Amino acid sequence: MIDLRSDTVTKPTKAMREAMFHAEVGDDVYKEDPTVTRLEQMAAEKLGKESALFVTSGTQGNQIAVLTHCLPGNEVLLEKDSHIFYYEGGAISAFAGVQTRTISGNKGAMEPSEVQSAIRGDDIHEPETGLICLENTHNRAGGAIVSVENMRQIYEVAQKANVPVHLDGARLFNAAVAKGCAITEFTKYTSSVQICLSKGLGAPIGSIIAGDQTFIEKARKWRKRLGGGLRQVGTIAAPGIIALSDMVDRLAMDHELAKKLANGIRNISGFEVVNDVDTNIVLIDVKGKQLTSAKVIDQLKKRGILAVSFGPTVIRLTTHYDVKNEEIDQTLAVFNQL
Amino acid sequence: MIDLRSDTVTKPTKAMREAMFHAEVGDDVYKEDPTVTRLEQMAAEKLGKESALFVTSGTQGNQIAVLTHCLPGNEVLLEKDSHIFYYEGGAISAFAGVQTRTISGNKGAMEPSEVQSAIRGDDIHEPETGLICLENTHNRAGGAIVSVENMRQIYEVAQKANVPVHLDGARLFNAAVAKGCAITEFTKYTSSVQICLSKGLGAPIGSIIAGDQTFIEKARKWRKRLGGGLRQVGTIAAPGIIALSDMVDRLAMDHELAKKLANGIRNISGFEVVNDVDTNIVLIDVKGKQLTSAKVIDQLKKRGILAVSFGPTVIRLTTHYDVKNEEIDQTLAVFNQL
Amino acid sequence: MIDLRSDTVTKPTKAMREAMFHAEVGDDVYKEDPTVTRLEQMAAEKLGKESALFVTSGTQGNQIAVLTHCLPGNEVLLEKDSHIFYYEGGAISAFAGVQTRTISGNKGAMEPSEVQSAIRGDDIHEPETGLICLENTHNRAGGAIVSVENMRQIYEVAQKANVPVHLDGARLFNAAVAKGCAITEFTKYTSSVQICLSKGLGAPIGSIIAGDQTFIEKARKWRKRLGGGLRQVGTIAAPGIIALSDMVDRLAMDHELAKKLANGIRNISGFEVVNDVDTNIVLIDVKGKQLTSAKVIDQLKKRGILAVSFGPTVIRLTTHYDVKNEEIDQTLAVFNQL
Amino acid sequence: MIDLRSDTVTKPTKAMREAMFHAEVGDDVYKEDPTVTRLEQMAAEKLGKESALFVTSGTQGNQIAVLTHCLPGNEVLLEKDSHIFYYEGGAISAFAGVQTRTISGNKGAMEPSEVQSAIRGDDIHEPETGLICLENTHNRAGGAIVSVENMRQIYEVAQKANVPVHLDGARLFNAAVAKGCAITEFTKYTSSVQICLSKGLGAPIGSIIAGDQTFIEKARKWRKRLGGGLRQVGTIAAPGIIALSDMVDRLAMDHELAKKLANGIRNISGFEVVNDVDTNIVLIDVKGKQLTSAKVIDQLKKRGILAVSFGPTVIRLTTHYDVKNEEIDQTLAVFNQL
Repeated sequence: MIDLRSDTVTKPTKAMREAMFHAEVGDDVYKEDPTVTRLEQMAAEKLGKESALFVTSGTQGNQIAVLTHCLPGNEVLLEKDSHIFYYEGGAISAFAGVQTRTISGNKGAMEPSEVQSAIRGDDIHEPETGLICLENTHNRAGGAIVSVENMRQIYEVAQKANVPVHLDGARLFNAAVAKGCAITEFTKYTSSVQICLSKGLGAPIGSIIAGDQTFIEKARKWRKRLGGGLRQVGTIAAPGIIALSDMVDRLAMDHELAKKLANGIRNISGFEVVNDVDTNIVLIDVKGKQLTSAKVIDQLKKRGILAVSFGPTVIRLTTHYDVKNEEIDQTLAVFNQL
Repeated sequence: MIDLRSDTVTKPTKAMREAMFHAEVGDDVYKEDPTVTRLEQMAAEKLGKESALFVTSGTQGNQIAVLTHCLPGNEVLLEKDSHIFYYEGGAISAFAGVQTRTISGNKGAMEPSEVQSAIRGDDIHEPETGLICLENTHNRAGGAIVSVENMRQIYEVAQKANVPVHLDGARLFNAAVAKGCAITEFTKYTSSVQICLSKGLGAPIGSIIAGDQTFIEKARKWRKRLGGGLRQVGTIAAPGIIALSDMVDRLAMDHELAKKLANGIRNISGFEVVNDVDTNIVLIDVKGKQLTSAKVIDQLKKRGILAVSFGPTVIRLTTHYDVKNEEIDQTLAVFNQL
Repeated sequence: MIDLRSDTVTKPTKAMREAMFHAEVGDDVYKEDPTVTRLEQMAAEKLGKESALFVTSGTQGNQIAVLTHCLPGNEVLLEKDSHIFYYEGGAISAFAGVQTRTISGNKGAMEPSEVQSAIRGDDIHEPETGLICLENTHNRAGGAIVSVENMRQIYEVAQKANVPVHLDGARLFNAAVAKGCAITEFTKYTSSVQICLSKGLGAPIGSIIAGDQTFIEKARKWRKRLGGGLRQVGTIAAPGIIALSDMVDRLAMDHELAKKLANGIRNISGFEVVNDVDTNIVLIDVKGKQLTSAKVIDQLKKRGILAVSFGPTVIRLTTHYDVKNEEIDQTLAVFNQL
Repeated sequence: MIDLRSDTVTKPTKAMREAMFHAEVGDDVYKEDPTVTRLEQMAAEKLGKESALFVTSGTQGNQIAVLTHCLPGNEVLLEKDSHIFYYEGGAISAFAGVQTRTISGNKGAMEPSEVQSAIRGDDIHEPETGLICLENTHNRAGGAIVSVENMRQIYEVAQKANVPVHLDGARLFNAAVAKGCAITEFTKYTSSVQICLSKGLGAPIGSIIAGDQTFIEKARKWRKRLGGGLRQVGTIAAPGIIALSDMVDRLAMDHELAKKLANGIRNISGFEVVNDVDTNIVLIDVKGKQLTSAKVIDQLKKRGILAVSFGPTVIRLTTHYDVKNEEIDQTLAVFNQL
């Protein structure tokens, strides 16, 4: 099977397994696990923040950020297809008690002037705007990169209104690698950021949230309440260190393969690549074939390729560490047969 | 002062004050207040529902409906300018823990196919759609009437998906009077409805929610938790009975005056009436005068007329029981001077 | 029927009905109702606080206080039989997201040293103590007065720990009248206080919360979210003004009648008065008669007297404005027959 | 250092590290990780439940259980020193919106008749009792075993009232091993149970919740919202399998060493063992030495022994996999010197 459903399916590398085996560990609830401490320091430094915290998933990192920044009855501004709004089970409303106000973005990027207009005033009828959430790269926009300039402008709007900005940067390293810039170019326009060690970076489990020390201190308590305060975390932090050290640069290869895949698809009539393929995600509209996404996914599966649905006639293919050049060739061959 | 800010400013009529004076009362927490019981029965009957409950405000009625229909982590679909989303302080997220998903309506009416598409499936990442909220007449759409046919279609979509429909009918009687139909034409396409006894109907305090008996029984407990379980409620239910009995038909006069006002404004260059004036609300864009809404409101106030802002260059004027024909003439005269 | 179930059953006096009839009103959401403003100023002054806010019930006042003082995940310390814990539907946990930690009091008064011990430290596993709630007079302790000295000591403990103190003073005027002291003797040892205008003071609807200006400003927004932001509130604030002005001193009569009732009961074998009858509540244990409370309440009802259950063998009788001396005689006559 | 602070400090065994290294993994969000699936099946079987779910911590398992069983505004009955009440940051109130009602137990066991009395009726003022939580062994009661008979009686009370029972069995295997009975003797009197793979069983991370299929299906969604839906979970599930297979019987050794430690302490004047030492926890009151717990912990630390405070004059010592017989001798030698 060629598994193009998501970069979340990557298996840990041999080096990661060895790191787990040898990991020096301690009880992290007592802050005595040297490996997770090392990971957190490394992550804070790379992300250009004072402090960082290991969390078990991107969802947990985002939830903690909202719980830490907001009060119940606040409103959170976020893109209408963002992961926090779309794919986290309404959890920020269930747990943090915040109202979601969505803005329709262009390739994942919200217009700064629309963000500005959506910030609430002090009328007693209205919720207070408590947080602006960005997502970069933007998953449902097909791994689209939100530009540094867009982030800068939104951050400026936010600063003026005294509203913090959280970045769901589950795949932010993809953006930095694709743009050939430091990840801090993006993170400097945020109050807090969450990045995933899994996905393209290949660690089996785990994400990082980073921000200033006050933020991380409060976040640590919310992590405990969510059941994310763990014991010998070094066992899973060790592969996370490898993810940050050794796996970032290779994301370029995933992007290259995604572009190759997209170019191949573009030559097949009836399939339309509907995103810009900035990074490792290819969105294909199959309606030209008079087919539904469900049907195509089924046919691909019978031919050894796994994909996921992104709407009635759109499927998503994602490249990652476990996908090699020849598998892209095979995938294109299968698409040609359909 | 001619107060056109809102129909909420109406003062109770002499008949209402007399009703308060004479009201037979009891302790409603023990369900022993005969006046509120009479009001609730009358309201249930008029609204075509099994049961009804007196609540202290439209906001309280809407909050109780969401708390009663939904579970935390559910998603509520509602129009992006609806009162529940816009003007209730994010309370449904703070109290009921639900996520808001907004749809941009046309004159307050959401497209049924868009509602359909926004209903979630059973993916573990997604919140369950717990409720669809409608608003009729739609305040921020300028008192626009949502058609019975639109409501019917959305209700059908909802029924198929097994999702309840709540109607914020704060000004639903305005819609029924303007359309010359029974209010049940609208309410039959709802699971629950909230209507205001104040506003155009002139009662000093209070709203009604109505639905089936199970709904009202659960609602009664949520009302208690919100601090809306009161004692000698007959004192304020008594004017509510007059509101329902004697004040509905006269809404036609408010609509007539609003149309007269709008027609007058349309003849003044630089002012644009931007809504259809279906009922008692007139929205005026003042940007043709190179003025902000704040500026115009200020100038009107100096000339004895009160209005409210509905955006940077839009003001809202609302007719109601305490506004007479000659005051519309005076208002137009002032607008002509501006 | 002689209704001794609760002082909540009192009907508004003629003066109150006239006040409703004549009340000068306005839209209180715009802060333009002169009557409620007058009531709030009068209440703030009497309670010795900077500011006060009209709310529709004691429950609503208490809920707002907790929402205003606390953050989700905080712990609230309160007496194990207090109204907030026992009779408010778990609402402070449902809405404010706080954990309740109860302390078993002696005649409604918590031991200051136990309060001290129950305040949490800064261990990451523990909730932060967000609020201490007192109740005076204490309903389930039989209208017991919590002494000023006890309140002072708890307030001192709270101040040291930087934790606010909220007083549920639904019947605080009863305590002040019984002790012959100013109500401020009690309220000076609180951060916020809620008092009822209904109950012994006879208003049909309404309570007051009072505190400093910052507290009341935040409280006003939470009141809006709960649906307690009303329009022509003067209609029910007007009797509230009479309650505060004219009805406080007469509570002494309720206390006298309660004592007379208790003394009478004490002379009847098989009935035991189990509280001190500090104010207007008499708790009677009926197990000496081999009867359940349900049975006794039923027999009393057949003989024209209404009471409520306070446990398997305990009933509560409450004196109030609508209970006269001769009705106490009749009640005692009935008890003698049982 | 001899670390007797907690059994949470145990380091993974070599076999566990090897299991991590070799673990067959997949993406568990797609339910494709064979190792975690195997662990969940094994756990369900051992616990005598239909289904089981891997969670990252005991706190997370308990939180999910409450979220799954309860509705906001419910009341949860639990022992006043239970972990869920004492050590989970008030999270069940913050997230599930439930009120906590505590009962003071005897050696961790609540009196069934008190549980019975604490279950609420259907008065509109009262929260509905949504869940009863038990803890076995009971941490703050010094690892005390709650008897099967006590659990049976409480379960019967709960069944009659139609209230589910959740067991926080973080250290339930200790109870079963100490009693020499199957763990199902305890779990059969529960609706759901949480057990830890870490602590005495030595896994670095993870707990299990088990119940019927409907419960686990709903629990899976709450786990996702809490950020506990992970990817290649096999890496940490693999040591969990060893924990369940190979580490249970050896708990007997921890108990033996705890008893030896307690017996030794009992012979030293000024120290009092205040618990029964049913399992692996020894609570020592040091007030006979005129010392505070903080002081003693400090002196022990200087002599190479780590302990934790359990109150002003009580310290807790816990035996576990990484504590050997000779270390108990050394510990006793140090205590003799103090």
